[in-house]
Amino acid sequence: MKNDRIYFWQMINPKEPFELMEKSFAALEKGEVLVKVAGCGVCHTDLSFWYFGVKTRHELPLALGHEISGTVIDGEPEWIGNHVIVPAVLPCGECTMCKKGRSNICRNQLMPGNDFDGGFASHVKVPAKFLCPVPDGVLSKYPLEQLSVVADAVSTPYQVMEKSELEAGDLAIAIGVGGIGTYGAQISKIKGAKVLALDISDEKLTMIKDAGIDATLNVKNMDAKSLKANVKEIAKELGASSAGWKVFEMSGTKTGQELAFNLLSFGGTLSVVGFTMDKVEVRLSNLMAFDAKAIGTWGCKAELYPEIVRLIGERKIKIEPFIETFPMSKINEVFQNSLEHKYSKRPILTPDFD
Amino acid sequence: MKNDRIYFWQMINPKEPFELMEKSFAALEKGEVLVKVAGCGVCHTDLSFWYFGVKTRHELPLALGHEISGTVIDGEPEWIGNHVIVPAVLPCGECTMCKKGRSNICRNQLMPGNDFDGGFASHVKVPAKFLCPVPDGVLSKYPLEQLSVVADAVSTPYQVMEKSELEAGDLAIAIGVGGIGTYGAQISKIKGAKVLALDISDEKLTMIKDAGIDATLNVKNMDAKSLKANVKEIAKELGASSAGWKVFEMSGTKTGQELAFNLLSFGGTLSVVGFTMDKVEVRLSNLMAFDAKAIGTWGCKAELYPEIVRLIGERKIKIEPFIETFPMSKINEVFQNSLEHKYSKRPILTPDFD
Repeated sequence: MKNDRIYFWQMINPKEPFELMEKSFAALEKGEVLVKVAGCGVCHTDLSFWYFGVKTRHELPLALGHEISGTVIDGEPEWIGNHVIVPAVLPCGECTMCKKGRSNICRNQLMPGNDFDGGFASHVKVPAKFLCPVPDGVLSKYPLEQLSVVADAVSTPYQVMEKSELEAGDLAIAIGVGGIGTYGAQISKIKGAKVLALDISDEKLTMIKDAGIDATLNVKNMDAKSLKANVKEIAKELGASSAGWKVFEMSGTKTGQELAFNLLSFGGTLSVVGFTMDKVEVRLSNLMAFDAKAIGTWGCKAELYPEIVRLIGERKIKIEPFIETFPMSKINEVFQNSLEHKYSKRPILTPDFD
Repeated sequence: MKNDRIYFWQMINPKEPFELMEKSFAALEKGEVLVKVAGCGVCHTDLSFWYFGVKTRHELPLALGHEISGTVIDGEPEWIGNHVIVPAVLPCGECTMCKKGRSNICRNQLMPGNDFDGGFASHVKVPAKFLCPVPDGVLSKYPLEQLSVVADAVSTPYQVMEKSELEAGDLAIAIGVGGIGTYGAQISKIKGAKVLALDISDEKLTMIKDAGIDATLNVKNMDAKSLKANVKEIAKELGASSAGWKVFEMSGTKTGQELAFNLLSFGGTLSVVGFTMDKVEVRLSNLMAFDAKAIGTWGCKAELYPEIVRLIGERKIKIEPFIETFPMSKINEVFQNSLEHKYSKRPILTPDFD
């Protein structure tokens, strides 16, 4: 590995293996920095780009990866040497949406591994403006690469919990406790909700129960009616209200979304956090009949990152039980295994280009 | 007609003619009043009960009608002689939901023509607590029976405009400018939005344009793609943003809901105001990809009624062009014609039991 080269795994075509490429350090413009990647998480969105027909905004070939932590080694002087998390959504900070406090849907936003070469690489070139510095106190507890999951898996559900107006005492129903859902369930617990996790994997349900979630339910082969009856029963046991449920769909599957919509009742809120290209058939009028709502969230405002890092530093949000690191050279194997649902933990790839 | 009798049109069975019945004045309990009906609007919800399989909460037979104005003639002394609008949703005012400011989904709520005999009658017995008095200044401009539409057709879209966080300068898209939509479009205009009305009836579109709405578009046979292109163009002409559209589905049809969902884009809000039993097939994940939301609203908080009456009194919300009165004895004909979409104005039935 040469000192002035960037090595990266490039997606050439959908469904084909990533290829190892190299290029020289591009010149940095004002406001930009070069980040030496510590780790980059493999997100369901990467699988969507690679396998499920979602198009990257920048044309292929492209290095994927938007869940990045690393160290600034070049560019804006005040950033050099900083250990940082690169937000998955990098807003402009100047437009109407940004000024309205909706920077996560800034129309000038840039997303690594979507608008430009991302984190499955030795280095990424990014705007410095919204990087989230990782304090030493947090780094003394977690290796930097593990914190890469903050950039999407932890921050996206964090933002949605805010948007859903989750309150202490509410029943929070986390559907799917995989890559995103594990954090969503924990964050709703921190907000004081009574938390019920639904999944089809006993292993994942056990893991999330160990992280302090109130109740779990395996919903494999469960029909909508039995599910609702079960959830009502659990709500009662937990002392939560029978109305105003906050449902968080974090499985990113058609089945999960259908279950989620069917759990909407009076004053309920469905938060669509996971993504699937599949359409679902729903009675939209239920929103009216139940005075309910369905909200979605794209990424997370960079402004919220420091608070998330703080919660991880205080071990209020646990990350270690839910992640597993692999050398980046295993990228093709890891993507294939992710596709086949072989992991119960989120894979993080760490650069091994030496 | 005898002085101590209530005459009413009773729904015996779905799809069958209403039958004229009579009963003696029931004893009034503390907190209750007897209202002599001035007018009762025919709402799509009545058609849903009568024809589309939606069940009333009180078992049949039952007098329908929840859009009532009238005069208090008995019961709580301080109310006697008052001209009032009876809110379609009568909350308890005591429960958690009521105290949280969500009285419209109070679980103890009572709705005339759903929980008890409604307004297609000479008199209705209702709790006095949340009645909305009509000031003389307003009565000098409108006959009391015309104000019956406040109880649902005007108040439901009023509440949804509040919930949708519609702001001055936003593009508001009113889908369906029938019974509810005419008021929804006008209220969004009052809130300072740029308002585009969509319908399949040129007649209705002309009427709403005359009421001061910025733009109209006949969407009959228009596919989703052309519609979106058209709306983008109109947004530009009106100087509205290309993001953050507020879409109000007020047609209560499957086609309308599909169009509405497809118009959701970045930061957009879909408000489901109309009701249909039909399911629709939608990509729910768009809510996530666009950071958008879909909300529903059930009725309207009684607390908001006085403000609506004030806006009507000031002629800011126009009602006369959109209503037509019929003698209540024509109820069967009016329901049948409503079912066949023969009216371009909302029918109000006025008692003629003499």
